[in-house]
Amino acid sequence: MERLGTVAIIGVGLIGGSIGQSLRARKLASRVVGVGRDQAKLDKAQRLGAIDLATTDPARGVAEAEVVVVCTPVTRIAVDVRQAAAHGPNGVLVTDAGSTKAAIVAAIEADVRARNLFVAAHPIAGSERSGVEHARADLFDGRACVLTPGESTPPDLLIRARSFWQSLGCRITEMTPEAHDAALALTSHFPHALAAALAGIVPTSALPLAGGAYRDGTRVAAADPVLWAGILLENQGAVLDACAAFRDQLDTFHQALSDRDERALIAWWEAARARRLLFGNDGS
Amino acid sequence: MERLGTVAIIGVGLIGGSIGQSLRARKLASRVVGVGRDQAKLDKAQRLGAIDLATTDPARGVAEAEVVVVCTPVTRIAVDVRQAAAHGPNGVLVTDAGSTKAAIVAAIEADVRARNLFVAAHPIAGSERSGVEHARADLFDGRACVLTPGESTPPDLLIRARSFWQSLGCRITEMTPEAHDAALALTSHFPHALAAALAGIVPTSALPLAGGAYRDGTRVAAADPVLWAGILLENQGAVLDACAAFRDQLDTFHQALSDRDERALIAWWEAARARRLLFGNDGS
Repeated sequence: MERLGTVAIIGVGLIGGSIGQSLRARKLASRVVGVGRDQAKLDKAQRLGAIDLATTDPARGVAEAEVVVVCTPVTRIAVDVRQAAAHGPNGVLVTDAGSTKAAIVAAIEADVRARNLFVAAHPIAGSERSGVEHARADLFDGRACVLTPGESTPPDLLIRARSFWQSLGCRITEMTPEAHDAALALTSHFPHALAAALAGIVPTSALPLAGGAYRDGTRVAAADPVLWAGILLENQGAVLDACAAFRDQLDTFHQALSDRDERALIAWWEAARARRLLFGNDGS
Repeated sequence: MERLGTVAIIGVGLIGGSIGQSLRARKLASRVVGVGRDQAKLDKAQRLGAIDLATTDPARGVAEAEVVVVCTPVTRIAVDVRQAAAHGPNGVLVTDAGSTKAAIVAAIEADVRARNLFVAAHPIAGSERSGVEHARADLFDGRACVLTPGESTPPDLLIRARSFWQSLGCRITEMTPEAHDAALALTSHFPHALAAALAGIVPTSALPLAGGAYRDGTRVAAADPVLWAGILLENQGAVLDACAAFRDQLDTFHQALSDRDERALIAWWEAARARRLLFGNDGS
């Protein structure tokens, strides 16, 4: 891949900061500009080596960009993409890192300039932590990045978007925004809510007796409630579907346990276990 | 602590094997005898350094023991404890490592000899893996071990049991069998079922898009279904109570999301997050 010119990152938190660190560590761009609303956070990002330059002026930040990556909360992304498209040069590639896709893509499709400059993306990497202080240059190594191009996405722009995300270490997958949101509701969005629900039933007094099942099962309950409320609301339909499927599983379990039906319990668990083993043994 | 004489371990899997390795690594016992029904597994345990000697004869295995640790599945523990008490020398300390306590203790209380030699224990350490090949000498380092002595437990026996589990690295906590089972239903037993229920809703096709929330949220679904069906059935009442509390949490979440009530979603998550943060930041 040829070296990029200026890359602008809108929102320099965990994800935006990791993109900046990765671009700089690999010397993939001539410069990385951080755009944000909070000067103190931008200063920190610069100090931590995530960006070369910083600005709180979105129009100036994207004025010379070859690529703009929008890493703001999902409820802000469509607005920020449209603004970046409006102020960016002709030919700029605008992409994002949002955890939901359908609502964002629909809002951008309505804007003729933006939809011709935008390729929706979701690099599946992150943590329950937020903030540039947890950014890592290798955050995207080997991680899936889902692109959800639409019919109006220019083919050459899609090629550039693939190349950009691959250069950060991602494996590229492409699907519709709706297929992405349905899958992520099951693999990520609803599991975050589950972790919070589990954390909610364990009283403080029982925590000294908690072990690995609690630790891992509730880890992502420590994530930012505002960010996650946004994601869940953006993907409301698919998350409610996942919740319904989960309730069916829980009902099966509850019935088998109430009936003291050991055979049914084992069969239920065995089916779940077989799926989990396909995901792979991660040594944890 | 003075060095122990013979320690017999009934059931040399992950937990029994780790106890053996810990005793041997710290030279806490003059010899460690493994007792099991499967000669091949005993041979493996011996090869892996978890035990000094092995036998498939429970009576012979405990005949000279100063301490017997019963590490069989929870549905077998009461029978194995009574057998160890029957064949062990006067003054032997019999303890166990079962994940449930009330049903086991009740079954042993009915046996006059056994209840005078037994202190129920649950070292809270483990893994979704089973088998002596995953045993580790440091498995118990810093982990809680719950003792649930009854009114008939001789005080000197309780002192020896505390000392034994402390020597393996455990922090000792004491409570009633019922309090143990209620707490563990919330912190471990029900969370295992939750992990299986979550694994059950994610189709194979979505696994390439699964990240950390899925990985950690489903990890313990890989545990042995037969062992876990046993634990859930032994602790049926408390697990069903935990399931009911969890359903209430899920209902609160579902209502807030259905209503698109962002404030309620955030408040719900924030309460769960505050509890999780009390557990501590484990760097994962």
